[in-house]
Amino acid sequence: MGGSVKDQLGRIQVEIGACPAVILVNPQLGENIGAAARAMLNFGLIDLRLVAPRDGWPNPASEATAAGATNLLNDAKVFETTAEAVADLSFLLAATARRRELEIPVIGTGEVGAALHAHEQGGTKTGILFGPEKAGLKNEDVVLCNHILTYPINPAFHSLNLAQAVGVFGYIWKSAEGTAPPPAFDTEPSEAACREDLVRMFEHLEDELDKAGFFFPEAKKELMSRNIRAPFTRANMTEQEVRTFRGIIKALAKGRGKAR
Amino acid sequence: MGGSVKDQLGRIQVEIGACPAVILVNPQLGENIGAAARAMLNFGLIDLRLVAPRDGWPNPASEATAAGATNLLNDAKVFETTAEAVADLSFLLAATARRRELEIPVIGTGEVGAALHAHEQGGTKTGILFGPEKAGLKNEDVVLCNHILTYPINPAFHSLNLAQAVGVFGYIWKSAEGTAPPPAFDTEPSEAACREDLVRMFEHLEDELDKAGFFFPEAKKELMSRNIRAPFTRANMTEQEVRTFRGIIKALAKGRGKAR
Repeated sequence: MGGSVKDQLGRIQVEIGACPAVILVNPQLGENIGAAARAMLNFGLIDLRLVAPRDGWPNPASEATAAGATNLLNDAKVFETTAEAVADLSFLLAATARRRELEIPVIGTGEVGAALHAHEQGGTKTGILFGPEKAGLKNEDVVLCNHILTYPINPAFHSLNLAQAVGVFGYIWKSAEGTAPPPAFDTEPSEAACREDLVRMFEHLEDELDKAGFFFPEAKKELMSRNIRAPFTRANMTEQEVRTFRGIIKALAKGRGKAR
Repeated sequence: MGGSVKDQLGRIQVEIGACPAVILVNPQLGENIGAAARAMLNFGLIDLRLVAPRDGWPNPASEATAAGATNLLNDAKVFETTAEAVADLSFLLAATARRRELEIPVIGTGEVGAALHAHEQGGTKTGILFGPEKAGLKNEDVVLCNHILTYPINPAFHSLNLAQAVGVFGYIWKSAEGTAPPPAFDTEPSEAACREDLVRMFEHLEDELDKAGFFFPEAKKELMSRNIRAPFTRANMTEQEVRTFRGIIKALAKGRGKAR
């Protein structure tokens, strides 16, 4: 996708066409349009299009729920028909939970993100249709689409809020962006305690426990020691944490109220 | 996870414990609590817990946005503290977008779903904390968690609506259903210590350290306490290991040679 830059007001500017257009077909409540705009911007989607919103446009009811994503509302393009709204798009999805008799192939939630990015990188403009609250998309809109996208939803409670549906799509799209695996730990390798420090901590602890008569009977000492060490090893402690625990052992071993 | 059936009223019935608990810590707006409940039920999550909701509970403002998920609101459990709310859970996530100085490992959005299902299949109760609107989770809550979960969010507009955050989590969990359990867990899920046992261990340790004059100066106690708790939380301790460490604390605190 295209790069994003910030303008002088710190607002994010992304080249239109580098992200999917979100097309809300006949949305009813301004609050939902605003909340959808907020969810879009959360995940870096900025191309909002409205097809014949019920209460007209602009709609003041959309502002509070947009929570700062007002640029998206101001820049929203309004169309009379779905066909006009999607005219420039070449890869189009229909978000719908309803089973259709249409021969439009379903695309899996696990593959749609990569498909969108591949199209965008190839210069293809992409988009997704969301239908009105309650009624959902009409078949005539769905047949404009390359694929149907359906979320894995609870069949007994399948009516997703419009802005929720947009937000989940945003997550799906954004999370498919050039995915490198996250580091397993926040801990910087350089901060991690070396084995030597860890073993010294174990020996310090076990020495004090010996003096306290903790290892009883003696025959069980080896097993008990393993059980003590395992969780500390798993914890991937930092140098600082090892120092802290050395202090703890010292403080406790000195007996109550005698640390200073 | 356990199967879901409908009762005679058509309400969905899922065995509690078969899905993650969603814990909203100090939620402010009833509307957001209702919308979160709706999003939960959309994805089959039914265990809603509230920690000290700002406007009390029940809250009539939550009903309209719940849009039929009123059972979840009626069944919501209310707690005064986060520790109480998560007492029975053994695998706990913190949903947060903020970078933390805490040594709690991040878990990737691509792996967290499978990890949750693996724990649930092993009989481990799981959950996720969401902080209040605007402020987010406090560090003292995050250190109770095995992992931090962060969505791939637009850094220039990262404040996600509370219900949106819950909905995306629901999607992540539900869409990972039926994926192969990851082999990477050292701890047998069924043996994992619950948060209540862990918190009691922390309190026991910190109580003895207090008596030993360890927390000096007093102003640093909170930070020191967090640094002590983080590696224990990361260690994914078993019940047996927690018992062992309670014994260790007791033995050391008694002073040398006086354990028996």
